[in-house]
Amino acid sequence: MAILLDGKKTASELNETTRKRILKLKQCGIVPGLAVVIVGEDQASQRYVRNKHKLALKLGMNSVIKEVPASITEAQLLALITELNQDTTIQAILVQDPLPKHINEQRIMQSISSTKDVDGFTAVNVGQLYLNLTGNYPVACTPKGIMTLLEKYDIFLRGKKAVVIGRSAIVGKPMAALLVNAGASVSILHRYTTEIAEYTRDADLIISATGVLRLLGAEAVKPGAVIVDVGQNLDETGHLVGDVDFNAVKDKVAAITPVPGGVGPMTIATLMQQTVDLTEWGLANGK
Amino acid sequence: MAILLDGKKTASELNETTRKRILKLKQCGIVPGLAVVIVGEDQASQRYVRNKHKLALKLGMNSVIKEVPASITEAQLLALITELNQDTTIQAILVQDPLPKHINEQRIMQSISSTKDVDGFTAVNVGQLYLNLTGNYPVACTPKGIMTLLEKYDIFLRGKKAVVIGRSAIVGKPMAALLVNAGASVSILHRYTTEIAEYTRDADLIISATGVLRLLGAEAVKPGAVIVDVGQNLDETGHLVGDVDFNAVKDKVAAITPVPGGVGPMTIATLMQQTVDLTEWGLANGK
Repeated sequence: MAILLDGKKTASELNETTRKRILKLKQCGIVPGLAVVIVGEDQASQRYVRNKHKLALKLGMNSVIKEVPASITEAQLLALITELNQDTTIQAILVQDPLPKHINEQRIMQSISSTKDVDGFTAVNVGQLYLNLTGNYPVACTPKGIMTLLEKYDIFLRGKKAVVIGRSAIVGKPMAALLVNAGASVSILHRYTTEIAEYTRDADLIISATGVLRLLGAEAVKPGAVIVDVGQNLDETGHLVGDVDFNAVKDKVAAITPVPGGVGPMTIATLMQQTVDLTEWGLANGK
Repeated sequence: MAILLDGKKTASELNETTRKRILKLKQCGIVPGLAVVIVGEDQASQRYVRNKHKLALKLGMNSVIKEVPASITEAQLLALITELNQDTTIQAILVQDPLPKHINEQRIMQSISSTKDVDGFTAVNVGQLYLNLTGNYPVACTPKGIMTLLEKYDIFLRGKKAVVIGRSAIVGKPMAALLVNAGASVSILHRYTTEIAEYTRDADLIISATGVLRLLGAEAVKPGAVIVDVGQNLDETGHLVGDVDFNAVKDKVAAITPVPGGVGPMTIATLMQQTVDLTEWGLANGK
């Protein structure tokens, strides 16, 4: 049986560090503030946002949920972001996707102040990541959380063959950038890739973020590989599972993230961590 | 014998289009201005800069060379960039690399105004490329020129297996981004990759930017592949050659860029093209 990359436990430790950092800030009269904007009534989104809110409060930060109806106009939503950009009690802004079709998602994301861009979505923060610049900037929470998890388990990356399946701005692309910066050889696959297994069969590390149930079985992975499963799918019995057929590969690979309890808790813990990062960086810049 | 991807001819056609665009701008009283900053006396850099200058003048634009000694301080160089950022006769700024070791190259590059950043090096422009945002922004000239060349020869990219060797900010990383955005499956390799041929042997498209003489021979490429050689190396007889053993692969692959006469002329033609792009975008923004 492979080593389980325990996201729940690692996230819990990270949250404890975050809690202590918040305590310290509070002693100086500063309360980190996270605002989450949710548009419409998507049930999964509502659940994610509630979980974030609960954790933020538990860790001692200021958590604000801005619920707006799906009928909101783009201009109204932009105005709300501007208001949050200017609000000195808010250090981090997250807009929960998906957004309704009549709203240009990138226009909204790019309107977030880069200094409050807790998911690292604005062009200037994305650019800094790709250029591997030194200095302080936020990075998309899911890939950053995965890097924390891999470090925790001493997974060595330099010179390793990594495969990232998915090219989204939120997971695949920043994940690939982090791995390239860490010295891995990185293949980025996506919906137009016809032979995914040709890549994954040779891979030392597979990061799958497709939302395709049982995308990878035992024949698609090599013995000793490390598997990070970002997928969140419901199987035929209504259970939450990833992209990878966990039971089929678990005795072949060296390590694997469970679903649930792998990447999910790391993403939300990283969101909390980066809210505090942004708060501290703002202080360092005299804001 | 493979098809030669004729960069010289394609660049010449692109330059002719650029010349006409400049003529049109001049009829409105506008002369696009390109400033190239060269630090120190590196002979290859001096030659590149002279070639850029000659072509810029030939196409009818304003070309300014700022030659400064290698002993310049970082502060002095930053002051020069600030001056060029504010100069209304200059629409495009290029800082020729390499820079002397005592100067932080990224600090210099990031100080260029993003609206005059003709090589697409600033974080906000890099980020826009990676996010594949719509709208106007400059992209690193070498990979953009390669895309123009591939389009010219109708090389289809979606779903193809591409391998990019090199992860520099100037070639490898933006090349990978352009190819991912175009729908190719992209593997990014670099100095820490131990088995380059394992990737290239299966590749439909290979972009090599390493500066390693004869990095790839016939056994490292598959029949029918397309080869783009960004390398500029001197062989034992003092001739300019690429990373790929041209004579060894030319009868196996479907298409290949010659060195010289492949990527080089496309890079400089793209620099001219983007100088005019930046001028026109500035006009559209009322600058």
